[in-house]
Amino acid sequence: MKIGLLNGPNLNRLGKREPDIYGKTTLEDIEKKVANAAAKFVGEKIEIECFQSNVEGELVSKIQEWADKNFDGVIFNPGAYSHTSIALRDAVSSVKICFAEVHISNIYKREEFRRHSYTAEVSDCVISGMGDWGYVAALQYLAVKLSDDKNG
Amino acid sequence: MKIGLLNGPNLNRLGKREPDIYGKTTLEDIEKKVANAAAKFVGEKIEIECFQSNVEGELVSKIQEWADKNFDGVIFNPGAYSHTSIALRDAVSSVKICFAEVHISNIYKREEFRRHSYTAEVSDCVISGMGDWGYVAALQYLAVKLSDDKNG
Amino acid sequence: MKIGLLNGPNLNRLGKREPDIYGKTTLEDIEKKVANAAAKFVGEKIEIECFQSNVEGELVSKIQEWADKNFDGVIFNPGAYSHTSIALRDAVSSVKICFAEVHISNIYKREEFRRHSYTAEVSDCVISGMGDWGYVAALQYLAVKLSDDKNG
Amino acid sequence: MKIGLLNGPNLNRLGKREPDIYGKTTLEDIEKKVANAAAKFVGEKIEIECFQSNVEGELVSKIQEWADKNFDGVIFNPGAYSHTSIALRDAVSSVKICFAEVHISNIYKREEFRRHSYTAEVSDCVISGMGDWGYVAALQYLAVKLSDDKNG
Amino acid sequence: MKIGLLNGPNLNRLGKREPDIYGKTTLEDIEKKVANAAAKFVGEKIEIECFQSNVEGELVSKIQEWADKNFDGVIFNPGAYSHTSIALRDAVSSVKICFAEVHISNIYKREEFRRHSYTAEVSDCVISGMGDWGYVAALQYLAVKLSDDKNG
Amino acid sequence: MKIGLLNGPNLNRLGKREPDIYGKTTLEDIEKKVANAAAKFVGEKIEIECFQSNVEGELVSKIQEWADKNFDGVIFNPGAYSHTSIALRDAVSSVKICFAEVHISNIYKREEFRRHSYTAEVSDCVISGMGDWGYVAALQYLAVKLSDDKNG
Amino acid sequence: MKIGLLNGPNLNRLGKREPDIYGKTTLEDIEKKVANAAAKFVGEKIEIECFQSNVEGELVSKIQEWADKNFDGVIFNPGAYSHTSIALRDAVSSVKICFAEVHISNIYKREEFRRHSYTAEVSDCVISGMGDWGYVAALQYLAVKLSDDKNG
Amino acid sequence: MKIGLLNGPNLNRLGKREPDIYGKTTLEDIEKKVANAAAKFVGEKIEIECFQSNVEGELVSKIQEWADKNFDGVIFNPGAYSHTSIALRDAVSSVKICFAEVHISNIYKREEFRRHSYTAEVSDCVISGMGDWGYVAALQYLAVKLSDDKNG
Amino acid sequence: MKIGLLNGPNLNRLGKREPDIYGKTTLEDIEKKVANAAAKFVGEKIEIECFQSNVEGELVSKIQEWADKNFDGVIFNPGAYSHTSIALRDAVSSVKICFAEVHISNIYKREEFRRHSYTAEVSDCVISGMGDWGYVAALQYLAVKLSDDKNG
Amino acid sequence: MKIGLLNGPNLNRLGKREPDIYGKTTLEDIEKKVANAAAKFVGEKIEIECFQSNVEGELVSKIQEWADKNFDGVIFNPGAYSHTSIALRDAVSSVKICFAEVHISNIYKREEFRRHSYTAEVSDCVISGMGDWGYVAALQYLAVKLSDDKNG
Amino acid sequence: MKIGLLNGPNLNRLGKREPDIYGKTTLEDIEKKVANAAAKFVGEKIEIECFQSNVEGELVSKIQEWADKNFDGVIFNPGAYSHTSIALRDAVSSVKICFAEVHISNIYKREEFRRHSYTAEVSDCVISGMGDWGYVAALQYLAVKLSDDKNG
Amino acid sequence: MKIGLLNGPNLNRLGKREPDIYGKTTLEDIEKKVANAAAKFVGEKIEIECFQSNVEGELVSKIQEWADKNFDGVIFNPGAYSHTSIALRDAVSSVKICFAEVHISNIYKREEFRRHSYTAEVSDCVISGMGDWGYVAALQYLAVKLSDDKNG
Repeated sequence: MKIGLLNGPNLNRLGKREPDIYGKTTLEDIEKKVANAAAKFVGEKIEIECFQSNVEGELVSKIQEWADKNFDGVIFNPGAYSHTSIALRDAVSSVKICFAEVHISNIYKREEFRRHSYTAEVSDCVISGMGDWGYVAALQYLAVKLSDDKNG
Repeated sequence: MKIGLLNGPNLNRLGKREPDIYGKTTLEDIEKKVANAAAKFVGEKIEIECFQSNVEGELVSKIQEWADKNFDGVIFNPGAYSHTSIALRDAVSSVKICFAEVHISNIYKREEFRRHSYTAEVSDCVISGMGDWGYVAALQYLAVKLSDDKNG
Repeated sequence: MKIGLLNGPNLNRLGKREPDIYGKTTLEDIEKKVANAAAKFVGEKIEIECFQSNVEGELVSKIQEWADKNFDGVIFNPGAYSHTSIALRDAVSSVKICFAEVHISNIYKREEFRRHSYTAEVSDCVISGMGDWGYVAALQYLAVKLSDDKNG
Repeated sequence: MKIGLLNGPNLNRLGKREPDIYGKTTLEDIEKKVANAAAKFVGEKIEIECFQSNVEGELVSKIQEWADKNFDGVIFNPGAYSHTSIALRDAVSSVKICFAEVHISNIYKREEFRRHSYTAEVSDCVISGMGDWGYVAALQYLAVKLSDDKNG
Repeated sequence: MKIGLLNGPNLNRLGKREPDIYGKTTLEDIEKKVANAAAKFVGEKIEIECFQSNVEGELVSKIQEWADKNFDGVIFNPGAYSHTSIALRDAVSSVKICFAEVHISNIYKREEFRRHSYTAEVSDCVISGMGDWGYVAALQYLAVKLSDDKNG
Repeated sequence: MKIGLLNGPNLNRLGKREPDIYGKTTLEDIEKKVANAAAKFVGEKIEIECFQSNVEGELVSKIQEWADKNFDGVIFNPGAYSHTSIALRDAVSSVKICFAEVHISNIYKREEFRRHSYTAEVSDCVISGMGDWGYVAALQYLAVKLSDDKNG
Repeated sequence: MKIGLLNGPNLNRLGKREPDIYGKTTLEDIEKKVANAAAKFVGEKIEIECFQSNVEGELVSKIQEWADKNFDGVIFNPGAYSHTSIALRDAVSSVKICFAEVHISNIYKREEFRRHSYTAEVSDCVISGMGDWGYVAALQYLAVKLSDDKNG
Repeated sequence: MKIGLLNGPNLNRLGKREPDIYGKTTLEDIEKKVANAAAKFVGEKIEIECFQSNVEGELVSKIQEWADKNFDGVIFNPGAYSHTSIALRDAVSSVKICFAEVHISNIYKREEFRRHSYTAEVSDCVISGMGDWGYVAALQYLAVKLSDDKNG
Repeated sequence: MKIGLLNGPNLNRLGKREPDIYGKTTLEDIEKKVANAAAKFVGEKIEIECFQSNVEGELVSKIQEWADKNFDGVIFNPGAYSHTSIALRDAVSSVKICFAEVHISNIYKREEFRRHSYTAEVSDCVISGMGDWGYVAALQYLAVKLSDDKNG
Repeated sequence: MKIGLLNGPNLNRLGKREPDIYGKTTLEDIEKKVANAAAKFVGEKIEIECFQSNVEGELVSKIQEWADKNFDGVIFNPGAYSHTSIALRDAVSSVKICFAEVHISNIYKREEFRRHSYTAEVSDCVISGMGDWGYVAALQYLAVKLSDDKNG
Repeated sequence: MKIGLLNGPNLNRLGKREPDIYGKTTLEDIEKKVANAAAKFVGEKIEIECFQSNVEGELVSKIQEWADKNFDGVIFNPGAYSHTSIALRDAVSSVKICFAEVHISNIYKREEFRRHSYTAEVSDCVISGMGDWGYVAALQYLAVKLSDDKNG
Repeated sequence: MKIGLLNGPNLNRLGKREPDIYGKTTLEDIEKKVANAAAKFVGEKIEIECFQSNVEGELVSKIQEWADKNFDGVIFNPGAYSHTSIALRDAVSSVKICFAEVHISNIYKREEFRRHSYTAEVSDCVISGMGDWGYVAALQYLAVKLSDDKNG
């Protein structure tokens, strides 16, 4: 089972940026946390690949690349691009990967323009407001979902 | 630790109603699943109380009652009332309980009028589209969150 | 053939309330009128059950109950809840009963907020502005429709 | 008693056009059905005149002509012009004829732009979603309404 | 003179809920305050009946009951239902009772969705932002208004 | 000087239709009134041609025809088509005739949908609410305007 | 017969300001033109009073003053205040004077925000786009209207 | 205790203007009524100053003046300026005076554009629809509020 | 292969009307150009029929007629009716003909109200802004498309 | 070179009003600051005239007066009138003076209704959020701009 | 003659992505097809350069580069960036190249957010729904247009 | 003191692109101008770094980099990304640098979609319409602001 962990703009600054909204954990902390959880929850047969970019088009390209490599699932925090990128929406909807969208803060509690998410409309599920635990919850969901699908 | 499992209108018909959208699991199945997960994930010190009603005002009253009984967290699927009930929003925001909102289907994929959620704006987190696993994920979040809060 | 006659909020006051808009006939008059019409138009093999409530959730529950009892059709005047209740919309769309929605006054002639109807979107047909005759017309439609369906 | 049966654009193609939405009955079938129902339901003293046109202005003129001939009621399916024609709305509201508007399909279930009806705002009643039975129901309503009016 | 004091959802929690917005006075305190003011301002010939419910439909039913008992006036704080309930609007507009609507906080200062009030459109007057004194002001208004009406 | 007097849908019924809004004068009365005013105000060198149609496309064609015949001005009451016809707007804007738009009633006092006028956007001037005198005022304007233009 | 000629903000600069839109005639020219036309069209029994102000409240006060002096009609060009002043709308609607609103340019051809007119909604008629002739046309209308009213 | 009674445009015409909406009492009657009520309700230690203007900017200046004179409260009926004046809103919000906004008619029952109030958003409370009694109720509120504030 | 060339309102004036937007070519020129292109590009086995009308309903009727005559494709420039006619939309969607919609000017560059096209939503393709070459491009598309369909 | 410094409503209270938003500098301080900067930056050949009013119409009149006196530039802080005054917009656009609009606070950070500015649409430039330095920056801009214009 | 063929995000996946909407042809196939058509239709004097990127800014840069190299025309499929990129709109409008915008699917038939196109507003023409033939049609248009321009 | 000069998409083409809107100065000219002004206005202790990119994500990254290098202020012209980029808004708001936003043209005078600016909402100040002088004004503001902050 191959899972991608994809993070969008400004998430490389996690832990440094507005800690009262996003917490103090860095992106590296989260990537380790997810890897550990994967080892515990799923076992050895899972492979995690991480990627972050501030550039919309590079995120599009990475999704295409992972589709070509037959990834099973992607934990995707598109950051601000959730609200503005139809290009990412098209990338997600054009591949046969299971997507779990994660927002660290509860987007329903913030500015009006963060309510709409183009990518959420084509993802399997959306987690919002769980802080960095949201990534772990997304991983567990993918594990459960993908093993359900395999077992019919 | 006291956790309430609160379900809104039509969720008593889970497993019977539109199974292609909501799956075949009944509400009783979910209540058991959450209890089992609680036992496993948290241990004996957790207490789960379940309530379902089709009546908006009874859900309001139950939240008030649980607040008086010092519940720590509530897993809340307000169903259709998420989108129309300011009364429930007020009930949630007026008590000091941690709320995890759950939607079985991905509300971003459905009718426009299901995008807005009054209750999500005052909840801690929102999970949407994980099927009945969403209830388990909500429980785990509450367990992690509440133990974090205790330990400071 | 089992038909339910379901009336929403304030319809228990028919004949007392704003008679220039809704006429002088009481709800009891209408229930009798429908029963008589059923006897004449369909014959003995039809069974009519009547229910009225001011509580949204009780209307939801009654629809669920009638679904469990295998009702064939429902004549439904949701009153003000047509315009605000997604919970009732979900109840209607989740059961396999044929619904004929009735509004006594022509809702196109009244306030803007009465134009939209959540329940009409999931009903078979909508009758608006026929006064209490609308209930009889709804019964006849259900009789014609359901016998057509049986005869293929 | 003189009743007009007025049909708007594309309704001359009934039975040929999108049969999954509008059924297989032709306009001629409907005109006969209404005539038969009139004979049965009202008796000899009723006179039915039929007219169909694809041209908005010809429908306006026909309504004016029928007003000059003292028609009592009109069964009117304005088709697509319901949603766009203020000219037809003005024609309907400027004459003293009782109008029953009919839509074969349930317009609440279709595209957003079919929700609004200029003509419905000035008609007595609106029937939507009953298939071709809607024309018969409209006739019966007019018969009941007009005889009520005569008898005071 | 018979006056009803009607309170909607969550108002049973007054004094406990968000005290910075709604103050520390409980609903019981307010009910006493109004009774005392009635005794002082109007004298013995006034009768006050109090009712609170979280259920929209029960508020509808109570208004209908008070209409049948010939109440002269109602002091009504519909809480969150002001903003969402057409059923309560219909109940208010269908009876011949004088309604004074009260909001404890100034609704113009809060969320956008609290600006609109269905019930205010059919009430005699609206008081907003006076805290619990608003109930007393409403009582005085009703006393003045109703005695004016009697005296012509 | 050649002036056309062009009237749109339902204006053939002037004097018969909703006299409280449009007055009792018939279209023939108006046509005579304008002819008389033309004789008085301008003298013999003016030629008036009248046309009325309920059909949008016939009005379009008449404007084209008058353009080919080198008409100098048109007094145009497009009736309901003002609010809905881009085709008429295109016809007006594509010819080099001076247009004076007339509305008998004050369109600012009526339904919201009568506020917008496609044709007014491409006319020289708009007169609204002067009753049938509006046609005379339009004629005088055209006479003044066109003689000003000739005299430079 | 007493007629007021009331001009709003910036109209004192007519002939100086944006001549391609408003022409070269000054306000004084217009006032004389209207006086001459009055003498010709109505005769000696008419009295014209002129007032211009850039201050919204002074226009309100002048309307109130003219109402107290029993003016019969007012030719009113509210300028930019047409689009923003509810205070002027209230002043116009609260007096029993016949108002003819004049706009020199065709407001349908200009910016979107000039389409709406608060004062037009409570005036008798609106003239737009006739240049300074519009004032004369308004005077004639008032003369015709007021003499019609007197003669019944 | 110093209280200002501030009235906006057209309120100088109270009792003369549209009496079916605003009643027959004149502004002078109201000013006396408030003075009497002040004497009764509060006693000698209260001082009332009255001001009315049709000019937005003069109302702004008066509020600034009263702020400089350390007024405690203002009873403010901004009339039409409630709906359009951000300048008045800024004036109110920039001073430390307690404002009670009064509307004689129930603004929820009138035109859509009267629903919004810029000044209400920065006032302490809003009273709407009590007729001229609203001024007395506002005075009492200010008396209660200000003495509460003093007594802590 | 039978192809219809259908043109809507004002297109009979091509070459005369606003040449800076639409060019100098007349409709007759275009019809010849398309015929020549058909001969060159497809050969003898293609048949072209041309029709233009200013009347919405006649365009509806022509589409119905061509459907009955088994036309394969239609090159359709609905002109202004694209933006307003649901009747034409219904006519197009109810027949099994391949439609290529043509607009001579680029509708994205013009007034806001020309952005929306009811007919484009049910056509196969839309060409906008190619001038009269757009008709030739539409013909070639139909030729390619229809021969592809035949060859499977 | 003649420069006007024009300030709108409530700006006479600068330094007293909401100092956390607008700072502690008074209007007199600013007027001196601008004069000093003018002396330094431009030299003796510049003349500064200052005016402040709370009355919209007086600001209109002052702009007209300065136009008649051939002012070269105006530093204009229209305060709240930026957002509501079309009359001021018209005054600005009707004169040949170069306008630099200044807002002390960053209007993009405040209430939605402060985003729109009628006057900004016809000014040369807009400065927002620089505090009282904004006036100096505006002066420098005008000096640079006007000397550039002179030097071609 | 130099023509660029520019493709935006996800178009590198043509033939792999959602083939029911976009067909099975790959981007390479299209590039060859266009080259062949160019050879046939225009001859040797045409030069085609192809570029695809998922990155908005790289498309902006390529347009700037081609402008510097004096390209005559660009066939541009901006994909999802049509609907969101003002940066691309600015790039297109700032160069003197003739742009033909191509969309493979008919964007009028898809989600509401695909209706608007920033780039279409500054392109010469738009082709939508022709499948990959649209690129060939665009090439032919450019060839015709550019040779027309050269020949005057 | 370290100041960044950051320019967004298409600004590398300044002087070449639409010179009637943006002037003839190139980006290099501006960078020199700012450096010179810095030297004059602030002295040697200021350091200017320049960066331009057409890629949204590279601008995000540069802001992050400058934050890590403890820049004091940024002069930022986000070009078209002001109106569409929440990612840039997040980058700006997540760092502790003082931002002065510059637009060369007056964005209030251009297309509607240029009115809104995501980045302006989180910047200190916004300058619009000063041409390239805006950059110098921004520098001066930063110098004044930052030295004020240091001096407390």
